[in-house]
Amino acid sequence: MLVHGQPYRSIWRSGSVIQVIDQTLLPHRFSTRALNSIADVCDAIRKMVVRGAPLIGVSAAYGLALALAEASDDQALQQAAARLIATRPTAINLRWAVEHCVGSLRALAPQQRAAAALALADALAEADVATNAAIGRHGASLLNQRWQALGKPAQLNVLTHCNAGWLGCVDGGTALAAIYQAHDQGVPVHVWIDETRPRNQGASLTTWELAAHGVPATLISDNAGGLLMQQGQVDLCIVGADRVTARGDVCNKIGTYLKALAAHAHQIPFYVALPVSTIDWQAWDGAREIEIECRDPEEITHITGRTLAGELERVQLVADGTRAHNPAFDVTPAQWITALVTESGVIAASAEGLQPLRAA
Amino acid sequence: MLVHGQPYRSIWRSGSVIQVIDQTLLPHRFSTRALNSIADVCDAIRKMVVRGAPLIGVSAAYGLALALAEASDDQALQQAAARLIATRPTAINLRWAVEHCVGSLRALAPQQRAAAALALADALAEADVATNAAIGRHGASLLNQRWQALGKPAQLNVLTHCNAGWLGCVDGGTALAAIYQAHDQGVPVHVWIDETRPRNQGASLTTWELAAHGVPATLISDNAGGLLMQQGQVDLCIVGADRVTARGDVCNKIGTYLKALAAHAHQIPFYVALPVSTIDWQAWDGAREIEIECRDPEEITHITGRTLAGELERVQLVADGTRAHNPAFDVTPAQWITALVTESGVIAASAEGLQPLRAA
Repeated sequence: MLVHGQPYRSIWRSGSVIQVIDQTLLPHRFSTRALNSIADVCDAIRKMVVRGAPLIGVSAAYGLALALAEASDDQALQQAAARLIATRPTAINLRWAVEHCVGSLRALAPQQRAAAALALADALAEADVATNAAIGRHGASLLNQRWQALGKPAQLNVLTHCNAGWLGCVDGGTALAAIYQAHDQGVPVHVWIDETRPRNQGASLTTWELAAHGVPATLISDNAGGLLMQQGQVDLCIVGADRVTARGDVCNKIGTYLKALAAHAHQIPFYVALPVSTIDWQAWDGAREIEIECRDPEEITHITGRTLAGELERVQLVADGTRAHNPAFDVTPAQWITALVTESGVIAASAEGLQPLRAA
Repeated sequence: MLVHGQPYRSIWRSGSVIQVIDQTLLPHRFSTRALNSIADVCDAIRKMVVRGAPLIGVSAAYGLALALAEASDDQALQQAAARLIATRPTAINLRWAVEHCVGSLRALAPQQRAAAALALADALAEADVATNAAIGRHGASLLNQRWQALGKPAQLNVLTHCNAGWLGCVDGGTALAAIYQAHDQGVPVHVWIDETRPRNQGASLTTWELAAHGVPATLISDNAGGLLMQQGQVDLCIVGADRVTARGDVCNKIGTYLKALAAHAHQIPFYVALPVSTIDWQAWDGAREIEIECRDPEEITHITGRTLAGELERVQLVADGTRAHNPAFDVTPAQWITALVTESGVIAASAEGLQPLRAA
């Protein structure tokens, strides 16, 4: 996608150095960061310099390649994989990408592994771009159909949560790919963006992405969605996913579940866009089986913003000693989801709907 | 309630000067502010130096008295009343308190009105304290019953939204009065406090209040409630109200509705605590009839906190030009509310449940 008129991806390679956009500084500063080692990659994933399920999968694949450039025997391979998987426990693409690479690399002689890992990571990045284009195509059709069904109103109001855009992938995005493509096709999309506390990915990243592409959008507090739905100001919801179980339960950014319940109460379609690699075939009952990552409480009690003088400043929002609890994801049971939008098409959020993808 | 060991109310009178706690500076600074004129009072209500439905009602009554000390003919009385009512359109106690005072004062000779208005405001403040004590008594019984019904677990987890504490009233609180009294009776209450974006009254005020009283509490993002309910970590919800319709629809701080829907999905009791003066007998269908105040979008795009150096600093959270929409309240239809907790007892959120209060 374009940044200041220049085409960018969220991650790319210059020789053996991996480059990423530092997403912790957006929207205030556009700055890239070089990742030279597996330690750099783990740090970037943990601190959310890179975030979004598809992007951390690709980042981890590059991390594996960087590790293998230093040591590439079986033990080194196994240790690097474990280290990357441990950075964030909830997103399944991370584990999927690492296991996918390890499976191929283990069969090779150690001295071949580093180069092969780099090629595998490059291929994953390219595949992600193609996958997102397909997700966007299927998702845009849904938006277009909804717009037609409503009698082509002057505005199609779409609510999204967090950032399921190109910043969370390699390029294109998942939920936002649907919005970009519908907008490009002439559907008059207007997006309600949940700010997405505590990390504010909606306020920081989704606003920035949509503005750059020229999609009309309005930021709201996470609390506002219920009212807007009740007022008839939301025509459709679409979000991304960090993990989807074999029966269609969706683990996504904390707060997704509340919006899905409200959408159901108001009979508003609630779609989840995801690459098939987000499906965890080992998991069935998401609420019981998925480990929910709890992050630093300071993500709630402190926040960084730009002062009037233009400096980035971190401020404390609460009294000293205030205890906070910070689960990063929640699980929306399949029953509340209208459909899943994958690169293979739009499918029911159910075991029956998902089964054909497993065979593929 | 106690502040640094000293008993305080949220509003009090020293001769003809009205004193309030500046709630925009909490929890970082405890500072009082003198209100010397109706202009001071209107400004304090609009900027949320004072906030909470019961407190703005009492503040407005004092505002009327301050206005009448300057001019007390019929026209002045009417103008002052209109000016106060216009400060915030949603909370009904404000209109109720002003109309209650105007009704009594109109019958008096102009030269008697200023003194009478002051006495009326004093009486409203005292009545609010007594009302809250009764609300707390009825609410504490519900918490105690729930604790017993669950088999007296080591912790009774109560979720609350915004600040329905003594800071939002004159003293005691509404929803928090129930929590204080249950805690004092030995029910092992632990409170999940929604931070309550965008104004963060939960993070700033409810955390501060509960800590001062020694009630165990944990701050969460507004997004976390659905997950906690799904995980069985919420036993009961209790919130305040800004307006309740004749059939029991509840208008309260934005985000309340999402929690009520989630509580219903998980069969968790959802209570609303309010003084009877919060009931708008003229309103029936809250979602259609209640005007929802929209506040400055900068409440979403900017935030004030404490820097490491101890200064209060306002920071911008989004890119320049980001559009935001900031409705301050939402409406929870009566069907999602387990019961209303008033000074007259616990009643059904329905026309039948409310009717006896109307007669009273």
